[in-house]
Amino acid sequence: MTLMVDLNCDIGESFGPWQLGCDGEIVAHVTSANIACGFHAGDPATMRKTVLLALEHKVAIGAHPGLPDLVGFGRRAMKISTQEARDMVTYQVGALAAFVMAEGGKMQHVKPHGALYNMASKDAVLASAIAEAVCRINPELLLFAQSGSELIKAGNALGLRTISEVFGDRTYEADGSLTPREHTDSLVKDPAAALQQVLGMIRSNNVVSRQGTEVIVDAQTICIHGDGAHALDFARTIRANLENAGVVIRSFENRIE
Amino acid sequence: MTLMVDLNCDIGESFGPWQLGCDGEIVAHVTSANIACGFHAGDPATMRKTVLLALEHKVAIGAHPGLPDLVGFGRRAMKISTQEARDMVTYQVGALAAFVMAEGGKMQHVKPHGALYNMASKDAVLASAIAEAVCRINPELLLFAQSGSELIKAGNALGLRTISEVFGDRTYEADGSLTPREHTDSLVKDPAAALQQVLGMIRSNNVVSRQGTEVIVDAQTICIHGDGAHALDFARTIRANLENAGVVIRSFENRIE
Amino acid sequence: MTLMVDLNCDIGESFGPWQLGCDGEIVAHVTSANIACGFHAGDPATMRKTVLLALEHKVAIGAHPGLPDLVGFGRRAMKISTQEARDMVTYQVGALAAFVMAEGGKMQHVKPHGALYNMASKDAVLASAIAEAVCRINPELLLFAQSGSELIKAGNALGLRTISEVFGDRTYEADGSLTPREHTDSLVKDPAAALQQVLGMIRSNNVVSRQGTEVIVDAQTICIHGDGAHALDFARTIRANLENAGVVIRSFENRIE
Amino acid sequence: MTLMVDLNCDIGESFGPWQLGCDGEIVAHVTSANIACGFHAGDPATMRKTVLLALEHKVAIGAHPGLPDLVGFGRRAMKISTQEARDMVTYQVGALAAFVMAEGGKMQHVKPHGALYNMASKDAVLASAIAEAVCRINPELLLFAQSGSELIKAGNALGLRTISEVFGDRTYEADGSLTPREHTDSLVKDPAAALQQVLGMIRSNNVVSRQGTEVIVDAQTICIHGDGAHALDFARTIRANLENAGVVIRSFENRIE
Repeated sequence: MTLMVDLNCDIGESFGPWQLGCDGEIVAHVTSANIACGFHAGDPATMRKTVLLALEHKVAIGAHPGLPDLVGFGRRAMKISTQEARDMVTYQVGALAAFVMAEGGKMQHVKPHGALYNMASKDAVLASAIAEAVCRINPELLLFAQSGSELIKAGNALGLRTISEVFGDRTYEADGSLTPREHTDSLVKDPAAALQQVLGMIRSNNVVSRQGTEVIVDAQTICIHGDGAHALDFARTIRANLENAGVVIRSFENRIE
Repeated sequence: MTLMVDLNCDIGESFGPWQLGCDGEIVAHVTSANIACGFHAGDPATMRKTVLLALEHKVAIGAHPGLPDLVGFGRRAMKISTQEARDMVTYQVGALAAFVMAEGGKMQHVKPHGALYNMASKDAVLASAIAEAVCRINPELLLFAQSGSELIKAGNALGLRTISEVFGDRTYEADGSLTPREHTDSLVKDPAAALQQVLGMIRSNNVVSRQGTEVIVDAQTICIHGDGAHALDFARTIRANLENAGVVIRSFENRIE
Repeated sequence: MTLMVDLNCDIGESFGPWQLGCDGEIVAHVTSANIACGFHAGDPATMRKTVLLALEHKVAIGAHPGLPDLVGFGRRAMKISTQEARDMVTYQVGALAAFVMAEGGKMQHVKPHGALYNMASKDAVLASAIAEAVCRINPELLLFAQSGSELIKAGNALGLRTISEVFGDRTYEADGSLTPREHTDSLVKDPAAALQQVLGMIRSNNVVSRQGTEVIVDAQTICIHGDGAHALDFARTIRANLENAGVVIRSFENRIE
Repeated sequence: MTLMVDLNCDIGESFGPWQLGCDGEIVAHVTSANIACGFHAGDPATMRKTVLLALEHKVAIGAHPGLPDLVGFGRRAMKISTQEARDMVTYQVGALAAFVMAEGGKMQHVKPHGALYNMASKDAVLASAIAEAVCRINPELLLFAQSGSELIKAGNALGLRTISEVFGDRTYEADGSLTPREHTDSLVKDPAAALQQVLGMIRSNNVVSRQGTEVIVDAQTICIHGDGAHALDFARTIRANLENAGVVIRSFENRIE
């Protein structure tokens, strides 16, 4: 049996005169791109350029809606209503969709950003609101969310095709959540260890938690960070090693099923 | 021959806790609605509610993109590049389109707002950029612009169906532009005079300028203001009088052609 | 002994073209004004006009800093760091101070707005950060906060002069907090009951909680809401009745101590 | 006679997660710093850190207010009213002043940013509004503006102490304005030529325009750009060369007069 996985990365997180990440290089290594939509990062010009970049590299395009908190980069939890969540996802997905349409592309997926992603991983009601927003815009959009999260459950319950995401460079807690960044051991810093974690998740559907227990995960897409110091190296290495191990790297729109 | 005209009005111009206009009432009197898209006014919740309101009243929906100037309500001219114009129109039209899709509606048109509308009336290059943005998102969208303006010309040149707009409560200059608001006689305050001006524009395709000359106009849609003190009265009166005069009031999506 | 109390009200909460509240009328009834500083409401022009209005009515001026959430009017809790709290208070207090200076006035106090006020009532660390920000800008500024709150304690600990605030139109919980707005009985709707609650708080330093227990409060200033339907009536009535009951209504900068 | 000049640089132009410039290094080479105030760049945290950085390096602090256009970095001309100009300057100068006060410093000057600077160089009415705003906040603040500009005239007319700014790396037009950036020869790219231009301006109060004519300038402060590729090198070189040529480099608050 052929093992297949998608590599996704956040791009388009520049804003106005400010550059962030190395989009032009990271796109060569991933298969799906989550493009910021203007609330936590991204602006109309950046969105257009980023859509073009993804199309040029045949990377599948996703919307990456975030909380309305530019200065906080959408990383600060906010107490929003479910209706507000629905509305902010709708707005941002629509804005990006117009650039995709204008450039003759097709949107593959939606992946919430930062605090919105984290909140929707644990809050079933919020998760349901986000999944519903995606569903109402276009039920054929894929919903990317953390493996085992409430957002995966909510998407499935509404009949969306969900894609479970795992992390190679983050440690897991026994309950399947990511170790919060405040912890000293929240990161898997050793590239070899990260690769082993990823291979284990793809081959055996599990990862060893920080507590030593086994956590079951579904590794359909791997989150590749694009803004760290070693982001490019990590992306290149993990991709090469996965391919060497016989894993096929492919986005979902390019699969024959 | 039956005379037919559309009445359009700006709605959805509330923001967060702040209300503007009397959308719930004005929609009963118009046939096309220009809905703010978040840059000069409007926010995701307001956009959703306004789309629902328009659908409920069977009023045709249009996007009303503006300059990124919330505090100035999009009324202050800004020196933007043509690429910036294209991008801001694309972003805003897309954002509104998602709400329209989510609620099962269809977008009829795009009408730029405020300073963007005025700048595009006179600047052929900017006009062309805006028309191109609309065209690339969806070439079936109608483009509303001032009768005789560069934006009408630019839309026609690109093969868009353009809709020429006229004003009943504003005076015209000899060159076909509106008398700037700074002038004391920029407004047609007498409702009877406004009605006469509108009827003349519909029946004879002309209006007498402030200088006394005849200006040729194409009265396909009449701009109804929704936020003035007498907005509702004016809308009600003009509609009743037009209908009494045998003019059919209808949006474009509801015409059999 | 003469009983003395201050009446404070939020004003300057308009933004750009959007009006909120009836500032021009409510200022005639209060003695201290909390002026929005641009993050949750207010813009430079509104701030200048509101400062002028307060000076004209000899109402003491306070800064009313909020969370950076214009569309949510600063009412949505956000997970901010203590450093972020310090910085956002510093920024906003400074911005308002410039208008006060430019118009020849003097700032009396600072009162956090909305979710920031509520969060600082219960979170000692956040409260301390806000008090420190005020202290570092000008240690003579008064700090308005809910009676019995962590913010009052934090201000006192730093040597600031704190002013304890009570509410006439809100019910209290046994722990001294306000009944959350979600509860059906969070509001004291009957004006006579609200007046009795206020008089009791001023005369006996206590209020009966929703649970029937007595809560000790320090009624140095009473919060008068300015944006409800009956705001003006309530303000007028409560002021007249307090004066009839022999209570002197005065801000703190106008007291001889 | 000792020749003395100030070197000023824009710093604090990062925003949220986005870094811009190399503030930590450039401050070692300049004597006055213009700190962004949140409208075109800068946020509360960045402003605090930048004020601390300037104090640490004993660099004189100035406010650098811009147009409310974050995505455009305050570089797009906007048609604002004089009252709007006054208000936006007041707001921003006040916000920065609070951080300066909180850190125990003193503000030396105000220098408008980008399009606001350029507009105020040519528009006497706008210039007067900006100078008046500075004057009303604190008449002891210095006003930095382009040598020969309307803003210098307006500041002088109001009794402000104005500081005339010149540019070493930009070419001049015969009328004393800078050659617009669109021109291919708007920049003096050769460091040796830039140094000669600066020395000429300091020693002889003139510069040769692009048209070959002499333009009289008053070189009280030299603008050092902090965000170009060679910014640091240029700053270091020009400072060393000026000092070698016997020119004393000093801000205005550190002069005995």
